[in-house]
Amino acid sequence: MTIRAGIVGYGNLGRSVEKLVKLQPDMELVGIFSRRTGLDTDTPVLPAERAAEHAGEIDVLFLCLGSATDIPEQAAGYARHFTTVDTYDNHQLIPRHRAEMDAAAREGGHVAMISTGWDPGLFSVNRVLGAALFPQPQQNTFWGKGLSQGHSDAVRRVPGVRRGVQYTIPSEEAIAEARAGRGAEITGASAHVRECYVVADEADHAAITEAITTMPDYFAPYETPVHFISEEEFERDHQGMPHGGHVVTSGDLGGSRSAVEFVLELESNPDFTAAAQVAYGRAAARLKAQGETGARTVLEVAPYLLSPTGLDELIRRDV
Amino acid sequence: MTIRAGIVGYGNLGRSVEKLVKLQPDMELVGIFSRRTGLDTDTPVLPAERAAEHAGEIDVLFLCLGSATDIPEQAAGYARHFTTVDTYDNHQLIPRHRAEMDAAAREGGHVAMISTGWDPGLFSVNRVLGAALFPQPQQNTFWGKGLSQGHSDAVRRVPGVRRGVQYTIPSEEAIAEARAGRGAEITGASAHVRECYVVADEADHAAITEAITTMPDYFAPYETPVHFISEEEFERDHQGMPHGGHVVTSGDLGGSRSAVEFVLELESNPDFTAAAQVAYGRAAARLKAQGETGARTVLEVAPYLLSPTGLDELIRRDV
Repeated sequence: MTIRAGIVGYGNLGRSVEKLVKLQPDMELVGIFSRRTGLDTDTPVLPAERAAEHAGEIDVLFLCLGSATDIPEQAAGYARHFTTVDTYDNHQLIPRHRAEMDAAAREGGHVAMISTGWDPGLFSVNRVLGAALFPQPQQNTFWGKGLSQGHSDAVRRVPGVRRGVQYTIPSEEAIAEARAGRGAEITGASAHVRECYVVADEADHAAITEAITTMPDYFAPYETPVHFISEEEFERDHQGMPHGGHVVTSGDLGGSRSAVEFVLELESNPDFTAAAQVAYGRAAARLKAQGETGARTVLEVAPYLLSPTGLDELIRRDV
Repeated sequence: MTIRAGIVGYGNLGRSVEKLVKLQPDMELVGIFSRRTGLDTDTPVLPAERAAEHAGEIDVLFLCLGSATDIPEQAAGYARHFTTVDTYDNHQLIPRHRAEMDAAAREGGHVAMISTGWDPGLFSVNRVLGAALFPQPQQNTFWGKGLSQGHSDAVRRVPGVRRGVQYTIPSEEAIAEARAGRGAEITGASAHVRECYVVADEADHAAITEAITTMPDYFAPYETPVHFISEEEFERDHQGMPHGGHVVTSGDLGGSRSAVEFVLELESNPDFTAAAQVAYGRAAARLKAQGETGARTVLEVAPYLLSPTGLDELIRRDV
């Protein structure tokens, strides 16, 4: 079956989904729904407010919308008319999002695949898989090396900062402790360094460093080196959106220890988030085709549903 | 629901499953079926030839039998009477095993979960998951550091060898190449060292080294260091069954590269194989309780089915 895909939203994530859908052997991209006109794309752009009119032409709709306000305000509306897949990432509110999407998707007879991407998403799968193997699992998640969008925004709000980025870097020693089963004492703050690169006038450097390193919640509990660099260095070295991380689970198995680790190294966070969203979009379209309805998390998806290759061939090749 | 478990076979794997089933919050161990009597265990031992009489008392039967002859000869017979889970690991013959187990399980109205463990098993899941993310995935599997049972047997068959073990060790450089997306040229032989530890009379050392390193298929294509050690060193340092490995998948995502890696470090191969088998046994019992029948591979199991924790709680805690 060819899966007819649509996209809502055309920021970094939407652009990544667009290029990856075009590379799938079993998908075709019908259009991008947007409230804006004049998007720089060859894909047909359709007005978002009239999306429902296209419900019959689309098997899965990729919701490439922000988690802060767009998903809470708009996602359920789309789920009434389409099988959807989102990357909603506000961990604490996922149960509420799930309930809302479940009700909307059931109302329309669709599937709503929620909170895909990598964390939540692939990391969630590996947390559950890892913990299921051990009677008393010790589990730690580490993030980075990666660009932290929210913390970079916080750096840029400091007076005098002309340009700024912040990278989260996990401590190698903390990861080694987790692998050895001694991760119980590790906290987010002890396991990560928050490294900042800032462009600013030299007269402001001391005040900026003080303002960043003492900022409550964001930086105060962390080791936070602040590096001042030139505009040219910023342009050359800090335009990417790398990210990654580790999920480490270890434990005793009745007399022996084992450790399970899942690692990501991503040159582009939006591209990889989109890659996971596209694979789970395939699964959503298949579940809907099988007659299922309602919200589904990544924990409820059998691995073969993510692949364009058929089950028999996967078993021959990969099992 | 409490899952009532049985075990067939009482070698290393059966003993590991026994101790791990006893540590599960939702399982109870009914008995071990064996052709032998006088097993050193507190668990009730029941005669294997009368297993079918106990079909009504057992929700999942762990087949802890060898893949060379026991599984092909006996597994389908059990699948007619029980929901089963095995660790059949002859990769090339898994499609045939699947067909036989599917027919037997459907005949009896049961589920047959096949080829669990870690390779096949968790590595299979990660090969499919990793490859599904990339339009053109580059994927490499590395094994070790680990004790290789078959190759250790080959070492011990060399004349003059009194005791011997062989460890497979993946090359760190090869793993780094795979992470960087340059894994296409890597072969099993170029990516692994086969390290041997041997106890023998000094007069035989040269001939033994020659016999091992030139053995076709087993050692000839590999870098094979042979270390001669004392009986005492062998007793002290080489009694364990460590193993592990890496599944590395990388690729381009329309202009950026990403790498996904799954890593295992196991002090005891049978204990960890059993841990995976027990988790997939839970899934098998649940699928059967849902009314499913037939053979299932690890690719067909949604992650939440492996965990003793309920789905709502997993979503709150791990997504």
